[in-house]
Amino acid sequence: MRVAFQGVQGAYSEMAAKEFFGPAASCQPFPHFARVFAAVVGGKCRFGVVPIENSIAGSIHQNYDLLQDQNVWICGEYKLKVEHNLLVKPGSKLNQIRRVYSHPQALAQCAQFFRKHRHLTAVPYFDTAGSAQKVACEDDLAAAAIASRHAAAYHELRVLRKDIQDFADNYTRFLIIRKSRKAPPAKLTASGKAYKTSVVFALKNIPGCLHKCLSVFAIRDIDLFKIESRPIGSKLWRYLFYLDFAGSIQQEAQANALKHLAEITDYLKVLGSYESCQSA
Amino acid sequence: MRVAFQGVQGAYSEMAAKEFFGPAASCQPFPHFARVFAAVVGGKCRFGVVPIENSIAGSIHQNYDLLQDQNVWICGEYKLKVEHNLLVKPGSKLNQIRRVYSHPQALAQCAQFFRKHRHLTAVPYFDTAGSAQKVACEDDLAAAAIASRHAAAYHELRVLRKDIQDFADNYTRFLIIRKSRKAPPAKLTASGKAYKTSVVFALKNIPGCLHKCLSVFAIRDIDLFKIESRPIGSKLWRYLFYLDFAGSIQQEAQANALKHLAEITDYLKVLGSYESCQSA
Repeated sequence: MRVAFQGVQGAYSEMAAKEFFGPAASCQPFPHFARVFAAVVGGKCRFGVVPIENSIAGSIHQNYDLLQDQNVWICGEYKLKVEHNLLVKPGSKLNQIRRVYSHPQALAQCAQFFRKHRHLTAVPYFDTAGSAQKVACEDDLAAAAIASRHAAAYHELRVLRKDIQDFADNYTRFLIIRKSRKAPPAKLTASGKAYKTSVVFALKNIPGCLHKCLSVFAIRDIDLFKIESRPIGSKLWRYLFYLDFAGSIQQEAQANALKHLAEITDYLKVLGSYESCQSA
Repeated sequence: MRVAFQGVQGAYSEMAAKEFFGPAASCQPFPHFARVFAAVVGGKCRFGVVPIENSIAGSIHQNYDLLQDQNVWICGEYKLKVEHNLLVKPGSKLNQIRRVYSHPQALAQCAQFFRKHRHLTAVPYFDTAGSAQKVACEDDLAAAAIASRHAAAYHELRVLRKDIQDFADNYTRFLIIRKSRKAPPAKLTASGKAYKTSVVFALKNIPGCLHKCLSVFAIRDIDLFKIESRPIGSKLWRYLFYLDFAGSIQQEAQANALKHLAEITDYLKVLGSYESCQSA
């Protein structure tokens, strides 16, 4: 079973894929999110795993845009606990390190660590696992990376300090995408956890329209988890709204709510209806 | 009158500041958005000009977070038409160019131009005006930048191709911030254009709460322009909502709506009430 992810080996996305599908899954790296979607749509990989939101930094908008634009189906969600670690070459000590490479968001999420260790300079790099790869490949004991323990194992680096992020509760929500409207392998849906449905819609251009759209859920006591807006590039100051709500499209209230929503919107696409689970 | 902006000289932010305040405004560059806010709060600059949203790329979340966190008041809005240009050193021709530097978003907004000119490689750079500065400083006729005509004039580059963005209607909304709750200089508010008010609030943790909050505006026929959600870092999967709505806090319906909103939310901050204007 081939699973596409964005980044280099040791990325948090790969970690999420391995935890969701089990260690036997064959994870294939792609350089951009668009390539992950293309691999799923084109049939090169059966599943894709893409981050959609981090509990501290917020939404990953590019993937919202791709979900709307590409013909994929969200069949699962996995919330990965993000634990940033300071990775060094074996033999390197904290007082030898000068430069710490990582993705700008990871660096920002470890601000307190940098305030405590003033001799360290945070250096932005394109990717967390990529920064681990860089440190592993170069012969420089003054360089370190911030990345996952998975990246440490993969690139044979040592975890010098673990859990150095500011907030202990730091999660990234990953979506599992596939080409067709099937559920993921049975063992993955057996836990009986709560279902979620994701949709994207465009409002009619009349006052109070967003309020009306939310009424569809409010009158049926359906909980909303998340609302996100993205510009419609071709229509100035008009937006697409992405909504995650409780329940499955198999349930009557949810199915009725969607019929009702279709009636009062200009555009509606159901992105997926799936089970949510999270790392232990 | 000193006005703070983020970026290097020739930035779109500086262009917005000059168009809003007039050419006599003394614009002072700062390396980060947080420093622009600090300059306004600390009194170093009377005003700050920060981008909040681009009509194609979407919201600039860092500035949403700073508006909530910092003690500033939005006193105006300026919508700048973004016209990306290909800037080269005098004497350089299109067939000589190989590398085009710019901010990743500007490069993405000129995708059709790159598809048409296959010999050009897009190279991400931290800033549009910064890329113009780089091309101006280096002795390389194969390098070009994508930036504003303002950046061309400032860095003595030639506009080889103008308006190369995919969408003609490409605007960035800039907010004018100041320390106190005063309107900007009188001449700037004299046009009689429509007012806008911006607020940020946190929902009570009960189902249907967002729907209730929007009702406050719907029952008074107050138009909503934009809703944006941002995570509350310390509370897992809870959000702050940013709302722009029509009218001024001086109007009775709007003032009542805010009283009503305060009643049903856990937190409410009015970020500003201001006039919106846009480039000719």
